[in-house]
Amino acid sequence: MLLADTFRDTLYKRLPFLVWLPKYTMADFVPDLIAGITVGLTIMPQAIAYASLAGIHPKYGLYSACFGGWVYIFFGTIKQITIGPTSIMSILTFTYTHDTNPEMVAFLSFMAGVVVLLLGVFRLGFLVEFVSVPVVSGFSSATAVFMTSSQVKTIFGISYKSGSFLETWRRFFKHLPEYRKWDLTLGISCIIVLLFLRKIGSLNLTNNATLKRILWFISTGRNALVVLISGLIAFFFEKYHDASPFVLIGKIDSGLPKLHLPPTHTEFDGKDYDLVEMMEYLGTGIFIVPIVATINNIAVAKVFSEGKIIDASQEMIALGMTNIIGSTVYGMPVASAFSRSAVNNASGVVTPMGGLWTGTLVLLSLWFLTPFLFYIPKASLSAILICAAVFMIEVHTARLLWKNNKRDLIPAAVTFIMCLLINIEAGLIIGIFTDISMLLYYNARPRINFDRRKTTTGLEYWIFTPCSGILFPAVDFLRQTIVEHVLSQSTESSSLTYIVIECSHIHKIDITAAQGIKSLIHDLKSRGCYLIFLDPNDSITRIISGICKDEFISSPSVNQLERVLNKELDECNSIKSIQKSQEKEPEKSAVVQARF
Amino acid sequence: MLLADTFRDTLYKRLPFLVWLPKYTMADFVPDLIAGITVGLTIMPQAIAYASLAGIHPKYGLYSACFGGWVYIFFGTIKQITIGPTSIMSILTFTYTHDTNPEMVAFLSFMAGVVVLLLGVFRLGFLVEFVSVPVVSGFSSATAVFMTSSQVKTIFGISYKSGSFLETWRRFFKHLPEYRKWDLTLGISCIIVLLFLRKIGSLNLTNNATLKRILWFISTGRNALVVLISGLIAFFFEKYHDASPFVLIGKIDSGLPKLHLPPTHTEFDGKDYDLVEMMEYLGTGIFIVPIVATINNIAVAKVFSEGKIIDASQEMIALGMTNIIGSTVYGMPVASAFSRSAVNNASGVVTPMGGLWTGTLVLLSLWFLTPFLFYIPKASLSAILICAAVFMIEVHTARLLWKNNKRDLIPAAVTFIMCLLINIEAGLIIGIFTDISMLLYYNARPRINFDRRKTTTGLEYWIFTPCSGILFPAVDFLRQTIVEHVLSQSTESSSLTYIVIECSHIHKIDITAAQGIKSLIHDLKSRGCYLIFLDPNDSITRIISGICKDEFISSPSVNQLERVLNKELDECNSIKSIQKSQEKEPEKSAVVQARF
Repeated sequence: MLLADTFRDTLYKRLPFLVWLPKYTMADFVPDLIAGITVGLTIMPQAIAYASLAGIHPKYGLYSACFGGWVYIFFGTIKQITIGPTSIMSILTFTYTHDTNPEMVAFLSFMAGVVVLLLGVFRLGFLVEFVSVPVVSGFSSATAVFMTSSQVKTIFGISYKSGSFLETWRRFFKHLPEYRKWDLTLGISCIIVLLFLRKIGSLNLTNNATLKRILWFISTGRNALVVLISGLIAFFFEKYHDASPFVLIGKIDSGLPKLHLPPTHTEFDGKDYDLVEMMEYLGTGIFIVPIVATINNIAVAKVFSEGKIIDASQEMIALGMTNIIGSTVYGMPVASAFSRSAVNNASGVVTPMGGLWTGTLVLLSLWFLTPFLFYIPKASLSAILICAAVFMIEVHTARLLWKNNKRDLIPAAVTFIMCLLINIEAGLIIGIFTDISMLLYYNARPRINFDRRKTTTGLEYWIFTPCSGILFPAVDFLRQTIVEHVLSQSTESSSLTYIVIECSHIHKIDITAAQGIKSLIHDLKSRGCYLIFLDPNDSITRIISGICKDEFISSPSVNQLERVLNKELDECNSIKSIQKSQEKEPEKSAVVQARF
Repeated sequence: MLLADTFRDTLYKRLPFLVWLPKYTMADFVPDLIAGITVGLTIMPQAIAYASLAGIHPKYGLYSACFGGWVYIFFGTIKQITIGPTSIMSILTFTYTHDTNPEMVAFLSFMAGVVVLLLGVFRLGFLVEFVSVPVVSGFSSATAVFMTSSQVKTIFGISYKSGSFLETWRRFFKHLPEYRKWDLTLGISCIIVLLFLRKIGSLNLTNNATLKRILWFISTGRNALVVLISGLIAFFFEKYHDASPFVLIGKIDSGLPKLHLPPTHTEFDGKDYDLVEMMEYLGTGIFIVPIVATINNIAVAKVFSEGKIIDASQEMIALGMTNIIGSTVYGMPVASAFSRSAVNNASGVVTPMGGLWTGTLVLLSLWFLTPFLFYIPKASLSAILICAAVFMIEVHTARLLWKNNKRDLIPAAVTFIMCLLINIEAGLIIGIFTDISMLLYYNARPRINFDRRKTTTGLEYWIFTPCSGILFPAVDFLRQTIVEHVLSQSTESSSLTYIVIECSHIHKIDITAAQGIKSLIHDLKSRGCYLIFLDPNDSITRIISGICKDEFISSPSVNQLERVLNKELDECNSIKSIQKSQEKEPEKSAVVQARF
């Protein structure tokens, strides 16, 4: 019975639709349908654009969007989230799989899905907490700049292979004379229209609720609108002037996607790749793609959690399953996008069931709209990408960091610059490394305040207050700070006999720190000073006195400090006479510290 | 003038002998000579034994010992330190250069010297602070076990190539039937004598000062004594019975070492290696060897610093120069040894000049004693190594960790086991990695105490006290802890409206943390709770209020908490009415957090 209960609980936790689906009513159906269709209209042009950004055929983008919507229904916990192609996933896909084939893209999705799933199952989601806001900010800004750079050529109607950031711009200027005026005209017009439509969504133009709603809908559906109109223009030219002046997407196979097992070998560039070689080819991508997707998903989930605790593990399982199942139709790696989830939220979605209609709409478009998709001009897709990218460059975050915490600019700037100078992947890794190094540095160099004080009877002492815990990397610094201070003060005054360490901020200590403190006690003793610990907790007392039994002096409060000091003063002479006989003898206990 | 001063200061700092040499008197000369000779007698058998441990010809061990003593005079700051071959350096040398030639050993010394020198010049010595006592302890214990395992065969008079720890024991049992009874008898006798002589040095057998001194000298010179006696026995057998029953060292070239430039190419195993290939062959050894040597040296320096601040950079420069200059005679990588430095200290050394006599004695032995060195039985050298190794296995540290801080056993055990299971190098790296991961984990999961309190007027609030700073990896945990607590409490009581975060232990915050706190404020608001910061410092106030201007509520003290709470209570209704109109609209500011 108990086992059955546990099993049911786990099942409900892992398949959250079992909880909400039985209670699903008509009142949920209508808003979900409306929201699903609205998101569907947003995701369709995005899927096509992101697929071209990833360097794959547009149909794979649509397949990914369709399966993203469907699979999340079963595993997802946050109704607003819609999983599908995103700009960053596209750029990462391009980074790892350009020069390969759809099978490698599917394999990347599959591997990313497996890794996310494993991270979720083994509750390793906390690892993403080590990726800070500045790093993510620098990374996504760099991605946006990279994306803009790679799309400028299409706006100009030029065609060449994109490379690294600098290489892309070099090639752009080399090919600039080949620009096509009609593509450029269309591209710039689309950008202007998109920015205008984006703006009217956020302006408060009218008080009429219906009109407001219509304006909002036009603004939200602006990508679809721009694609539709530019496609119609191209269709008109093609039909009545025999040829369109624009570069078009071209033929997309209609019909349902075919299911495949995850590929175990493939062939491109005239070389066969087996499973191991495929993994070697993707290299760090197998970890970078899932980690970025997870950071992405958890960040979006947090925004829409509405004060609830997010089940991060379950969200990772959902994301992993979406990618794994998506890979069976050669879909690209997917994640949730904040923009789409916001549209979903604003459309009034009630359950994850909205994804059913989003996915279905995309599937229907594949069935019925492919003849039309042929006419979509590439320049208008690039305009959509550029308009999305521009708002991803986080100038506001940079300003925020500059105003509030300049130190945080370092990881952000390092990530941003390295992403553009080397590549997206190296930039992210170097950024995280920089950030963790800074964190370790804080651990190694805590702030230590010090002050000279007197007891009520006039006995002077120095009090040192470390502002955070003393763990192994910090103890040398503490020791050096105190000894240097004692050395610098010893000439001007002879009263520097009592050094107090205030322990209120130290709640944890380790053996290395205790050893260092022992050495500090010896250092100070050799200069005739005593070290007193003010109010150490039990754990600190236990560890330090375990290392240096008789030498550890502590006082529970400032009031009792004097009594301890005086007691020490009395014992001082007798100790000194004992010490004399032991001088020059290397201490046995010292062996513990110098182990070689 | 100022420039000249700076130059002179730097010169004095970088060549410390310029300070003490001009003041050198006859009163310094005599104790330095005595100490130098005592250390020389210790280092000679060690150098021969460690060379065989490193898999190189004994003469190179002696060259290293000689140059170690000499070079340190010029650059060293701590009179007790004697640089020369050590057990760990020998094992590392064996790890990286077995199957190669003396040129590769010299190249390893040279590269290690260069790296240590650069670390010293660029003041990167603080990096070794990230290697904790438990890791060093696990590492040196594993080295000792490894060393014992590799020497057991020689005690048994068996000969085979040592491999990994497990492989060495497998081969030992395979070759056991080939054991030679005379080697075994000699080896075990030597071990017993060595342990006995070691013991009498620490016992307080007599009150007669001269006798005490003689016993101490015999105990200190036990290695030389054992080598001398066993060599004489072998000589006797060889002379009067035509052949010795023991395996002997064999011929050592007499005379001065030849000087070479650091090798830039070499050849072994029938393959040519250029500079780059030599570096590739050594791999991580180029960093592991200097880092271990540095940890070693700084640990010994600390023990003998006598309350002075160690100039760690200068010590690293000294160590680097010793290795670089040592490589010109094909010396092996060297470092300081605690045992020898303790002998030096106990012999009453006054300046680093003691090293002159140590080095000179070793050189003289090379000149005059090489005919005798031929007769040293290998088993007696192995006995010396085993007797040194046994006391390097840090059972006491393990016991200390077990008693005082069991968590610290993890990095120690991981390092120890991995060193033996994989190899010395991988074990050290995995150990450091484990340790830093644990440190990062503490950063991510600070202890958060909480308590329910009442103001004097009976208003109830919950107070949360994070025990250490909240930096980026920790904020999610803080958020989750508070939200979970609020959720669990909300059913049983309705008074959970005020959540106070006590900031006394938080002295630093970053943007990621501030963003997380903003989300927390929103989480709590959506459940009708308010978050109040108790006495945040200026930096915290600035950063959090920079991120969420109007929502940041702080109170300077517990006494004023009530006023702040009441003020908030008054404003509450007006805020609520404003909020109503904004509901369901995705917050713009949220975009900052979910950037994709």
